[in-house]
Amino acid sequence: MQRRLSHWGWGYEDRFPDVETRRLFAREVQMFGGFDALTPREPTPLADARLPAPRVTVDDPRLASIASALPYDRASRAYGRSYRDIARGFEGDFSGAPDVVLRPTEEAQVAAALEWAAAREVALVPYGGGTSVVGGVEVDARDAYAGVACLDLRGLDRVLEIDATSRAARIEAGATGPRLEAQLRAHGLTLRFFPQSFELSTLGGWIATRAGGHFATRETHIDDLVESTRMLTGRGVFESRRLPGSGAGPSPDRLVMGSEGTLGVITEAWVRVRPRPRWRASASVRFREWTGCVSATRAIAQSGLWPANCRVLDQREALLNRVAADGTHVLLLGFESADHDVRPAMDRALELARAHGGECPDGVSEKRAVEDDDPGAARDEVSDRWRQAFLDAPYLMNSMVSLGVIADTFETACTWDRLEALHRGVIAAMKDAMRRVCGRGLVTCRFTHVYPDGAAPYFTFIAPAREGSAVSQWTELKHAASEAVLAHGGTITHHHAVGRTHRPWYERQRPEPFGDVLAAVKATLDPAGVLNPGVLVTAPRGPRAGG
Amino acid sequence: MQRRLSHWGWGYEDRFPDVETRRLFAREVQMFGGFDALTPREPTPLADARLPAPRVTVDDPRLASIASALPYDRASRAYGRSYRDIARGFEGDFSGAPDVVLRPTEEAQVAAALEWAAAREVALVPYGGGTSVVGGVEVDARDAYAGVACLDLRGLDRVLEIDATSRAARIEAGATGPRLEAQLRAHGLTLRFFPQSFELSTLGGWIATRAGGHFATRETHIDDLVESTRMLTGRGVFESRRLPGSGAGPSPDRLVMGSEGTLGVITEAWVRVRPRPRWRASASVRFREWTGCVSATRAIAQSGLWPANCRVLDQREALLNRVAADGTHVLLLGFESADHDVRPAMDRALELARAHGGECPDGVSEKRAVEDDDPGAARDEVSDRWRQAFLDAPYLMNSMVSLGVIADTFETACTWDRLEALHRGVIAAMKDAMRRVCGRGLVTCRFTHVYPDGAAPYFTFIAPAREGSAVSQWTELKHAASEAVLAHGGTITHHHAVGRTHRPWYERQRPEPFGDVLAAVKATLDPAGVLNPGVLVTAPRGPRAGG
Repeated sequence: MQRRLSHWGWGYEDRFPDVETRRLFAREVQMFGGFDALTPREPTPLADARLPAPRVTVDDPRLASIASALPYDRASRAYGRSYRDIARGFEGDFSGAPDVVLRPTEEAQVAAALEWAAAREVALVPYGGGTSVVGGVEVDARDAYAGVACLDLRGLDRVLEIDATSRAARIEAGATGPRLEAQLRAHGLTLRFFPQSFELSTLGGWIATRAGGHFATRETHIDDLVESTRMLTGRGVFESRRLPGSGAGPSPDRLVMGSEGTLGVITEAWVRVRPRPRWRASASVRFREWTGCVSATRAIAQSGLWPANCRVLDQREALLNRVAADGTHVLLLGFESADHDVRPAMDRALELARAHGGECPDGVSEKRAVEDDDPGAARDEVSDRWRQAFLDAPYLMNSMVSLGVIADTFETACTWDRLEALHRGVIAAMKDAMRRVCGRGLVTCRFTHVYPDGAAPYFTFIAPAREGSAVSQWTELKHAASEAVLAHGGTITHHHAVGRTHRPWYERQRPEPFGDVLAAVKATLDPAGVLNPGVLVTAPRGPRAGG
Repeated sequence: MQRRLSHWGWGYEDRFPDVETRRLFAREVQMFGGFDALTPREPTPLADARLPAPRVTVDDPRLASIASALPYDRASRAYGRSYRDIARGFEGDFSGAPDVVLRPTEEAQVAAALEWAAAREVALVPYGGGTSVVGGVEVDARDAYAGVACLDLRGLDRVLEIDATSRAARIEAGATGPRLEAQLRAHGLTLRFFPQSFELSTLGGWIATRAGGHFATRETHIDDLVESTRMLTGRGVFESRRLPGSGAGPSPDRLVMGSEGTLGVITEAWVRVRPRPRWRASASVRFREWTGCVSATRAIAQSGLWPANCRVLDQREALLNRVAADGTHVLLLGFESADHDVRPAMDRALELARAHGGECPDGVSEKRAVEDDDPGAARDEVSDRWRQAFLDAPYLMNSMVSLGVIADTFETACTWDRLEALHRGVIAAMKDAMRRVCGRGLVTCRFTHVYPDGAAPYFTFIAPAREGSAVSQWTELKHAASEAVLAHGGTITHHHAVGRTHRPWYERQRPEPFGDVLAAVKATLDPAGVLNPGVLVTAPRGPRAGG
């Protein structure tokens, strides 16, 4: 039996805990947050949900067999999976649902969908895992279009070609993390790209949103793993050549990356793959002082040791994640290689950490020269546990919504010189906002990725909602978070993307003429203005928009 | 006394060898190439050169003090420094000279120059070191404009700000390699970006052309060292924020990089700097078999060891550079770090090399934990010698032209699966072309940069010219080279840029709709169509072009 994805929440339906489990969870959240009593509620059944009548029918014979207007198909793809999205879905509000869902299984159907949408003035939303937390797949200016179609690309999920010599693979854009890894594994290869949405999200979605992945240093974004891209546009096929490095004009791939479905539909990419690591070492370092923890992390980020994992948990985050209950800040370090022993690199990193006041009471856990054909031996318990908890975290959101608790995360990146002020300033701004909007609340921080010139802090906040006001309260908190991030010199997003939610701050952040550039590029590649309208830029020639 | 740059050749005037030295050099080239007797000729003195009368005068009071129409100023900036450029300059042909040279020393003057050029329909060429080998600074469609102005940015050469915590520096775009390194050295820092044009070329030029530098792996291009950019455009200041990493939309910096002066004038950038290395290790490995040499290099490039130097010289290149006279192919390996011992990495790289048939008879040369404040001790003889020879190589071009010998280089990059066929195919195509066009000739190859998924081969060719036909013969050879590179799946340029010379092949290489995109971007940022016209794209609204 195929597992079904929840039509309102994160991930698979069968992962939503029963009411007893949610009651136990409620007690934990109450204690941890010092909140008043929380009572689990049940989601509105799909049969009772508010779903607008579809406005368009698909009259193109090339698309008839892949079109659906079934309530489940439309409702489950109405939104991404931000707090706001899950909260609306939980209440049965699917006013954002597409009129029709198209599910191509070959590229020619994608081209047909593009033609049809342009001709019929239907907004077309390229859709991968539907895990956007920034309003990336929900058209808000619906009335400007004859309708809204969701182009669900998950039927394009094949690894088409492998070049083992160059360690590269040509993969269809709709392949989810598990789908592409399973196919690569048969060749002894892996992409090793594990965003938190890995279970659900797709290669095309990662590229369109410049997703952040497994490696905490150097190859932090999917950008670094892309060799070439193929995107269908309103002006023909936009396909770059497979080149390991080129200096020929501005990079065309760098325009595709981060285009968030507004310029074309990514259908394939060649990506850089690798054998699985045979040497691994991991360790956790504790710091009494935040300043020392940051300095140690900076020293390691600037050392040229390039750890695969270099994640910092501030004391609140360490407590929340049950990594340390003694008020210390924790640095999780990991090295891995398919070629050589990584212990010398780990030892040097620990030397740097100790020089800044770090302590490593549990020592180094390591695997040396494990055989790739023995998956059991290759497993590293510490990182496996961290990885599983990391991948499960978004599922907690479903329960939080059921308890009437606002829970969300946001992330940024800034240079090291601004980091401590940003960390302090954002935490203070969020505490203040939660006090004002919700009476109380918790905020924690970790660093997900680090660079020689800065780091990417990732914040989690949790606050009790008033019944009926959760979405508007969340909107106020999100506004405060975005203002604080920009005021302290951070980017509005390090890897979650811009979508519709971040757009006002993105417009303040980007070079002023770059907005005009994007509008001109959109007018060139999407002359009908139908592709994911409202994201990044206003379609300059959208139907019914120019009058 | 200030040294003067040659008005026709590479670099400084006083580096052009006297006739006796050139006679000795002629004998070497004859022997090495099996050429007929070569006789050095003398360059046409500037007083006898053909320089068109200037067509425009600068009537803007903001620019009067920085404008010059002196023959030396115009002639010396007429061309880049490709073989074709030097050959024309040697013969006194300066038909490509700008009408006027503008030398701003502050950014406001750059803005004034942009305004003036747009208003007067004067083509404006942003000019750094003038070392383009791809026709990057010579306007060919001169008649479409009221005149041509060269905007020489070398007066903007200051390091403006240093953020030692984040290891970044804000530097003006006109700073040459030596100028910026001298200023960084005072702070114990270095950019460590050493393209072959290091002595002359500028930070802005590197960014505009996506130049390749010191590191053979990972940070191969200036792209990897840029934190943010500032560019003046016809639509205002295009300035990105300092961010170590961002996922907010397509990267604005990646549009600036590779724009080759067509979209705006880069005036500043924040770049990532670092302390000088304290540990170094270098070694040279010899291979009897080319296949083994390539496999070893690939294994090292895919190992995650990330050598700073990983340059391959094929047997002809090794002979030409006097690195090996025994018919072996040579791999030059180097590791460096400011933080830790690099010997383990070198030992593992040599292990990989030996597994593919490499021999390392001279062992490893190394420096361990040298003090940065003792520059003498930090020197590594082998790499210093290689580096000096590398930086001096372009000066040989002046002598070659004087001898009537065509000498040039071209470069590409391709994936590993295509590499041996490309190497073989390009060498065969060039031998064939030189036999046909010049009767005979030599071609050699090295790899300048390597990647997990491919490598960047760099070819040198030398052939005797017929007097009076050198430029047209070169044009035929360059055509053959570009065709061969593209036919074998390489990029038309890995780090030399597109300019005007590579444009026909660039147009075949890039995604087809990307040409339309660039035209739309140019129309947005350079609405007058005056910036470096003819490079990358045809100005869609250039004056006198649209009619």
